[in-house]
Amino acid sequence: MKAPWKKMTIDGERLRENFEELAEIGATIGGGVTRLALSNEDLEARAWFANRIEEAGLLVHDDEVGNLSGVLLAKRPDARTLLLGSHLDTVRNGGKYDGAIGVLAALEVLRTVNDAGVELPFHLEAIDFTDEEGTWQSFFGSLGLVGDLTDAAMNGASHDNSGFRAALFRAGIRPSEVYRARRSPETLLGYLELHIEQSERLERAGKQIGIVSGIVGRSAHNFIFYGEAAHAATTMPEKRRDALQGAAIFITEMHKMVHDEYPDGIVNCGNVHVEPGTFSIVPEEASLRVECRHPDSETLAEIESRLIRLAQDCAKLFRLSVNVKTVLRRPVAHMDADLRQIIEEVCRARKCSYMEVLGYAGHDAQILSRITPAAMIFLPSQDGISHNPREHTDWEDIVTGSNVLLHTVLRLAEIHKDATTNHHA
Amino acid sequence: MKAPWKKMTIDGERLRENFEELAEIGATIGGGVTRLALSNEDLEARAWFANRIEEAGLLVHDDEVGNLSGVLLAKRPDARTLLLGSHLDTVRNGGKYDGAIGVLAALEVLRTVNDAGVELPFHLEAIDFTDEEGTWQSFFGSLGLVGDLTDAAMNGASHDNSGFRAALFRAGIRPSEVYRARRSPETLLGYLELHIEQSERLERAGKQIGIVSGIVGRSAHNFIFYGEAAHAATTMPEKRRDALQGAAIFITEMHKMVHDEYPDGIVNCGNVHVEPGTFSIVPEEASLRVECRHPDSETLAEIESRLIRLAQDCAKLFRLSVNVKTVLRRPVAHMDADLRQIIEEVCRARKCSYMEVLGYAGHDAQILSRITPAAMIFLPSQDGISHNPREHTDWEDIVTGSNVLLHTVLRLAEIHKDATTNHHA
Repeated sequence: MKAPWKKMTIDGERLRENFEELAEIGATIGGGVTRLALSNEDLEARAWFANRIEEAGLLVHDDEVGNLSGVLLAKRPDARTLLLGSHLDTVRNGGKYDGAIGVLAALEVLRTVNDAGVELPFHLEAIDFTDEEGTWQSFFGSLGLVGDLTDAAMNGASHDNSGFRAALFRAGIRPSEVYRARRSPETLLGYLELHIEQSERLERAGKQIGIVSGIVGRSAHNFIFYGEAAHAATTMPEKRRDALQGAAIFITEMHKMVHDEYPDGIVNCGNVHVEPGTFSIVPEEASLRVECRHPDSETLAEIESRLIRLAQDCAKLFRLSVNVKTVLRRPVAHMDADLRQIIEEVCRARKCSYMEVLGYAGHDAQILSRITPAAMIFLPSQDGISHNPREHTDWEDIVTGSNVLLHTVLRLAEIHKDATTNHHA
Repeated sequence: MKAPWKKMTIDGERLRENFEELAEIGATIGGGVTRLALSNEDLEARAWFANRIEEAGLLVHDDEVGNLSGVLLAKRPDARTLLLGSHLDTVRNGGKYDGAIGVLAALEVLRTVNDAGVELPFHLEAIDFTDEEGTWQSFFGSLGLVGDLTDAAMNGASHDNSGFRAALFRAGIRPSEVYRARRSPETLLGYLELHIEQSERLERAGKQIGIVSGIVGRSAHNFIFYGEAAHAATTMPEKRRDALQGAAIFITEMHKMVHDEYPDGIVNCGNVHVEPGTFSIVPEEASLRVECRHPDSETLAEIESRLIRLAQDCAKLFRLSVNVKTVLRRPVAHMDADLRQIIEEVCRARKCSYMEVLGYAGHDAQILSRITPAAMIFLPSQDGISHNPREHTDWEDIVTGSNVLLHTVLRLAEIHKDATTNHHA
């Protein structure tokens, strides 16, 4: 049976047809896509996906948090499940590839295996995770699956979560039931996700495949500088306590610090809010959120504490006080070494060029890695552009990546052929 | 007649009663006042002022732009007019002294002169100017009087001027008629304004009176830095074009430049607006308004052009472009040398301590100075606090200042006793 497996390939034409059909759902002028999680477009995309699953003769499955799957059952009902997937939702006016490629390639792998009549020693499941992008709550679906949905997560991105609840109800998701989506780690064999890189490291290196070593840790802090509002013209210079001057030098210095001292680190400040915000009044309050990312947990913690000290130093320069609050902390996620090894072997066997890469953006794989071995396969992004209508990945790279995904599944089937049952069942 | 004039003083008790009554109109918790121009409170204050004028047996006069005056007519109807005044409107939750003192002291001077039966060789007019503070349009009343109301000014502070028009109509001001408020310079002898300093130079120097040499020029520019929105995590550091980084270093450097190189200059940035303003997206656009003030026109122009060059340099650092637009330009206003000389003589004669000061805030006097000799008398502000309920000036300083105003009027009467008619009539 080994020999024919080696020659198996996915059906690139069928995958492409699916890709083009899906891209029409929520298509925007200029070639982008808007399929915000739980929107009409997202619900339409899910219905379309369910139809493709049925058409392929696979089992349609959904869970209490709205994750939607096609399942190819193994012969033994107590077999574990290998999850393949990503997400169908997008950011506003995002690209056609982000998320979609991972879900469609997963379905294509199931169809290819099913069509070939190959029997796997595990259930194979192609899954679309709810709201990866965070229209309401980032990783809502994957957090539900791993059992990490907290009350805070259920409150969504805004303080008023009535819109989120309404959107959930409309999608047939009952907020009180979402905790039941949790799957026991013993039922899972692992998780594989094919995704575009969204950066340009692969393109620059001329590689077809990126094997993700890990996903960077990420934290976000709110800094509020407090000064004193005063008449800009009549206040004596030595009495100015200008909150915006503190915030401005902090923004400059924090970028300098991370750029100069932490080459693998990333820091961003996307907004500043100033009170009272009138051009002839000395700013009383300047608040900003700073996010930082680093592949090493300890270094990330070091950057965080240096940012806080830096903010305090900047505040002192203008006789301000500063308040710091941590608003987000996502630990570094390590991708499974065995799975990475297998992907590398598949690349070699298929003569695909590959390299190890870090994931700087967030992915459902980092959530899944909390309870099961997880790995990611990255595809080159043209000019590294993503979350943008100009997002592009060459079609042949998508076919190459989908075949690497297929053969990683087949290789896992070989490895697990004698260990098909749930060990802990 | 000279001798009794020298002993004349205003009625401090009467002035204080007026002051306390007026402070009740629009009083806020904590001792402040909110009498926004053309609001119910402002209209109530004007009605109250008109009643005080009538009560004093003076002529009530108003013009097409809503300026409200009490007039003590000279014998000869073709005499010129000496204006004394300020404004009854306030900023939101401002102080009791700003503007109010100038109008009330003016009225008190008219009453004192009238009660004493002194005949002046000019009409004496105590005037309240409409919307000095700029609830709708800064200096609306004084701009109308000097004939400098433009269509732009008539559009008020916002693009939608329907609220402004409604407020004008409600106050009995017809927008199409405001241009008729213009007075011919030949009909005016000059303008004197008593006002609190709103800064702490007098207090620090221990002086009772500030003789204003000029009001600083003021300009405001909008700077917009343009970069490129991008995923904060996946964008290669060398590809970041972060508009906020450009704006941040510009804010820091412009303050440094003005502080280090222009000791009489003042610069302020009261707000920054960032697009798209999301914490995980590299900022695409950062817009800010910078105002600067300087007592010397040429130096102000120099600061402006250096600010623009600095913005361009800051933009280059992050491969941004920057757009600059002038949104306000008010020239330096020089107070009349002869009037200043007279005020100084009055201070000496009355043994008041005085010093020359610059006006950093805007006042109707700077508008009046465009067509007639204008001068200002400043009173000490406790801790320099203004536009704030904690605004305070000692009552005895107010009485001292009002008497200086009275005697400046009397001195002018002496000077002009043989030249009472409108020279150009």
